[in-house]
Amino acid sequence: MELPIAPIGRILKNAGAERVADAAKAELAEAIEEYGNGIAQKAVNFARHAGRKTVKAEDIKLAIK
Amino acid sequence: MELPIAPIGRILKNAGAERVADAAKAELAEAIEEYGNGIAQKAVNFARHAGRKTVKAEDIKLAIK
Repeated sequence: MELPIAPIGRILKNAGAERVADAAKAELAEAIEEYGNGIAQKAVNFARHAGRKTVKAEDIKLAIK
Repeated sequence: MELPIAPIGRILKNAGAERVADAAKAELAEAIEEYGNGIAQKAVNFARHAGRKTVKAEDIKLAIK
């Protein structure tokens, strides 16, 4: 896991949560990171396909589509 | 934005990125956070629907489905 837990708790508070179980934060962190991993993998492939070593914002945008 | 940028950069490195533009990290952070906000909002609604003030892991799991 790369993402820290505290900001995940704040995301839930921002959404209106009064209290949040630690297990809920962990579950959301995992889901968010998996989503991020999928986009990142696509973006890396798109950068390579374009003959670049640098992943750019346009690779991320294409990966999100 | 709640999520810090550094872990987002690591997610891209883990996916095989040699170099990552700052704008790419920002773009991915935004996408990840939007995804998280959507799940968080659903999970908060599910907790309320169940008569709870505490968001539990089961609410997150249901929101991801």
